[in-house]
Amino acid sequence: MTTDASLVLTAYCTNRAGIVAALSKAVFDLGGDILDLQQFDDAGTGQFFSRVVFRGVSGPLDADTARRALAPVMDGFAMTWSLRVQGERRRVLLMASKFDHCLADLLYRWQIGELPMDVRAIVSNHPRETYANLSFADIPFHYLPVSKENKAEQEDKLAALIEAEQIDLVVLARYMQVLSHELSARLAGRCINIHHSFLPGFKGAKPYHQAYERGVKLIGATAHYVTSDLDEGPIIEQDIERISHRDSADELVRKGRDIERRVLARAVRSHLEDRVLINGMRTIVFPE
Amino acid sequence: MTTDASLVLTAYCTNRAGIVAALSKAVFDLGGDILDLQQFDDAGTGQFFSRVVFRGVSGPLDADTARRALAPVMDGFAMTWSLRVQGERRRVLLMASKFDHCLADLLYRWQIGELPMDVRAIVSNHPRETYANLSFADIPFHYLPVSKENKAEQEDKLAALIEAEQIDLVVLARYMQVLSHELSARLAGRCINIHHSFLPGFKGAKPYHQAYERGVKLIGATAHYVTSDLDEGPIIEQDIERISHRDSADELVRKGRDIERRVLARAVRSHLEDRVLINGMRTIVFPE
Amino acid sequence: MTTDASLVLTAYCTNRAGIVAALSKAVFDLGGDILDLQQFDDAGTGQFFSRVVFRGVSGPLDADTARRALAPVMDGFAMTWSLRVQGERRRVLLMASKFDHCLADLLYRWQIGELPMDVRAIVSNHPRETYANLSFADIPFHYLPVSKENKAEQEDKLAALIEAEQIDLVVLARYMQVLSHELSARLAGRCINIHHSFLPGFKGAKPYHQAYERGVKLIGATAHYVTSDLDEGPIIEQDIERISHRDSADELVRKGRDIERRVLARAVRSHLEDRVLINGMRTIVFPE
Amino acid sequence: MTTDASLVLTAYCTNRAGIVAALSKAVFDLGGDILDLQQFDDAGTGQFFSRVVFRGVSGPLDADTARRALAPVMDGFAMTWSLRVQGERRRVLLMASKFDHCLADLLYRWQIGELPMDVRAIVSNHPRETYANLSFADIPFHYLPVSKENKAEQEDKLAALIEAEQIDLVVLARYMQVLSHELSARLAGRCINIHHSFLPGFKGAKPYHQAYERGVKLIGATAHYVTSDLDEGPIIEQDIERISHRDSADELVRKGRDIERRVLARAVRSHLEDRVLINGMRTIVFPE
Repeated sequence: MTTDASLVLTAYCTNRAGIVAALSKAVFDLGGDILDLQQFDDAGTGQFFSRVVFRGVSGPLDADTARRALAPVMDGFAMTWSLRVQGERRRVLLMASKFDHCLADLLYRWQIGELPMDVRAIVSNHPRETYANLSFADIPFHYLPVSKENKAEQEDKLAALIEAEQIDLVVLARYMQVLSHELSARLAGRCINIHHSFLPGFKGAKPYHQAYERGVKLIGATAHYVTSDLDEGPIIEQDIERISHRDSADELVRKGRDIERRVLARAVRSHLEDRVLINGMRTIVFPE
Repeated sequence: MTTDASLVLTAYCTNRAGIVAALSKAVFDLGGDILDLQQFDDAGTGQFFSRVVFRGVSGPLDADTARRALAPVMDGFAMTWSLRVQGERRRVLLMASKFDHCLADLLYRWQIGELPMDVRAIVSNHPRETYANLSFADIPFHYLPVSKENKAEQEDKLAALIEAEQIDLVVLARYMQVLSHELSARLAGRCINIHHSFLPGFKGAKPYHQAYERGVKLIGATAHYVTSDLDEGPIIEQDIERISHRDSADELVRKGRDIERRVLARAVRSHLEDRVLINGMRTIVFPE
Repeated sequence: MTTDASLVLTAYCTNRAGIVAALSKAVFDLGGDILDLQQFDDAGTGQFFSRVVFRGVSGPLDADTARRALAPVMDGFAMTWSLRVQGERRRVLLMASKFDHCLADLLYRWQIGELPMDVRAIVSNHPRETYANLSFADIPFHYLPVSKENKAEQEDKLAALIEAEQIDLVVLARYMQVLSHELSARLAGRCINIHHSFLPGFKGAKPYHQAYERGVKLIGATAHYVTSDLDEGPIIEQDIERISHRDSADELVRKGRDIERRVLARAVRSHLEDRVLINGMRTIVFPE
Repeated sequence: MTTDASLVLTAYCTNRAGIVAALSKAVFDLGGDILDLQQFDDAGTGQFFSRVVFRGVSGPLDADTARRALAPVMDGFAMTWSLRVQGERRRVLLMASKFDHCLADLLYRWQIGELPMDVRAIVSNHPRETYANLSFADIPFHYLPVSKENKAEQEDKLAALIEAEQIDLVVLARYMQVLSHELSARLAGRCINIHHSFLPGFKGAKPYHQAYERGVKLIGATAHYVTSDLDEGPIIEQDIERISHRDSADELVRKGRDIERRVLARAVRSHLEDRVLINGMRTIVFPE
């Protein structure tokens, strides 16, 4: 996670010849030296995707200046694009329920500087004492218990908080309440959930118990963007572990914790580093 | 794969105290030395499962003698059990369709002595020349092309062949025709299929294309016993490989070949070595 | 991790026929019902190893009573053995240096009840404020800074602490000081270290930098019992992750943290659950 | 493995600003459309590495024409570079000894079109009947038995064969004779060996037996370019599998076969697809 004022450009558009040449020339012309260029042509959809990291040849580049310099080229290709300072922290809201292994893991990684994020709020439908062993440093904690009756009201509070704190990314770190279609849609591409199964297997409730009943030999976890279609959003990362007939459903739950936390952390990191581009139901994840 | 006339006992029954003591005493009393004992108590179903390898303390034991000596003890626990000479080759029928990577792999492993089986027949719905590059040694090849019209008739031939050759195990090595409910039922516990997905994800046709469309980040394969419920039989073995957005559906097919062949080979080996016991929808697979 | 007063017997001796029969009969005779029996005959060394979990058929068994009942049988085979109440917490001392990812992980797992241990002390050669973000609950922290001059003196304090607290297991959770031969010998079989490489590759200092220089495509970590021979003790657990040419040595360090913490946690858990038996330079690790 | 007359450019040089821009402009100017561009800046050595796949915007491009058009740009950066038609088969010589699992696997993959190579010769220090079960199609087989006395002479024959057949790549598919320093040097960057251990662990002879003695919990295999420094060449690919105390050295040998063949096949495929660039002791392997 370098923070030497490199800039990260992500961009996608309908593919045609000459995009890389134009992009890299534009970077060169504004005094940039490309450190890393990754691109992907999706033959199926005819889309071009790219992530370019560059820095000033002679001293740091100003992001706004760079944006202005790049805009005409980007417009020429009708690109959807974004330029950010590398390592600049995104504003993140973490949500959890009773189980806090993902929350604890994300906080630890944040504390040691592994995740370039500014945690603006922690939200839970369980009270603060649920996490008695976790230090939240000075991050505000919001207790938003959810019942059938108050669900809409609590979600309004959540939406207001997201707006007030200008949240860039919401992470559902084993938050067990389903967001409304409306909020899911509003957070499209900036809300990551960890599902405790190897999707598309075992959607819905109690996936480890489903996995136990079905007798699978591997269990997994899936980090995906939240969409209004439950457990169906674009997948960012998945991983698995081997189990055996000796494992009860409870032991799957325990072993699953390790998978969930590393899958979610990788997905969040990839997102924070601008490595993920959404391509319909799928994602491009440019490797570290 | 030792063939020093050790005996392998597999057994299961309703669990109660004293089974291991009685079993191991019976083995000791008949002059046996236990080389390997594995057992599993399924707390959920209250069943006891065991696999015991033993040899004669003073010279090889005769299997029939051992069976007679063990029978009273086994009867006392109402055990379902089987005793075989370790390494004794089972009579196997291999079935394939157009793609022969699993067939080729099983034959290679058989040739170098990795799989204790006696391949009695190879059956395909494609003609012999489909496998022009494969040496079948002196294994008879049976061409049974299947159409809507002749499906029942061809399956009768297959069933007759299984009977005539006293087949112990049928391996569907990417055989792409669905067996009838009746034949599936008749082969219960002695017919292994390789499904080219990480079940229960992507059941049915073209699983790699389904996986591509869904945008998963890992693909897998599943070896399972065939039941009359398609893609739903007890799972013996699964494995996965990591893929990326760069992989087209065709590349998933290619990468999947490596997963399929190793998953199927492991499952077949476990079965041939009497390591697999069926427990309803699940399996116990005692480790090597 | 059941704590229903089951008992766990671990035992090893020179192998001969009849051990399992005698063991299981002895358990049955004292009113025990075997829940899990695992054994291993090492053909190379002629040793027999076993782990047996059992509970009373009619109510909890008293450990001392069971020990007295089993002793004659165990003596008959000249067994080295141990009997413990399953889930009984061992007294553990954790040691760390500057990097606290393993320490944080072990503490988290302890807090949520994943590791049956009673952490009696945390010892570091760095001061308490190094771990400002970690809650140690009410575990005493001991700051024992080490220099060439005071090394022996500090180790005496450590040894005294181990004795005073009746420590069963010392865990070197990325503790970067080498223990003396004498202390290593005294802690034989009850001191686990995590080495941040896939041993025997990259022994010694800065293994990730060695790995980077060598250009390996996988990095790993190794949990092993400490012996007087540095980085050479019996291995309990190892794991790896895939890396690429894009990873700098610093990124290997980051990725390695995830491997280290899970490898160490698994090894500690296996030890605490009496699953590990030492067999010369090797270990038997009976699976969960 | 597309063969639609796309061209693959691989190139490396001392890094400086503007290379990607110049490269991609040159491709565009000659009428090329970039399908895939991967690049890597090695911060440690200050080298730039790249692999670019492109095709003609309006019909196939001629490779020679493209080379002439690119040459001035490449010269301007003092690039070492190569341009090939994608999917064009390299001329390959396969070498094996007694164990043929890697040989059989490479031949199978070649037969089904998975590896873009033209196998010009198979060389062994064992006679043809060693591979009785393998079909070599019409590939000439050369029996070159090696003894202390004739080693130099046989290697001369090998070198002559390599020259006569204009071999692009020599694959040591478990060939157990050490090549001379001279031949190794002459084949620098075009001779791939599979070593049956997770290098740098267990160099030299009988690595599985070393691994067994050391009690590791994972075994591996390593594909690397051959250099005059035995087992020390740049690593292309590695993989591992989990083992347990139950595995004897012989079982490690068996399990290792599966690892070796897939690691070697991946490395060979990467080389054949121009994905591997050598960077001192390390390799860049641009992902598929």
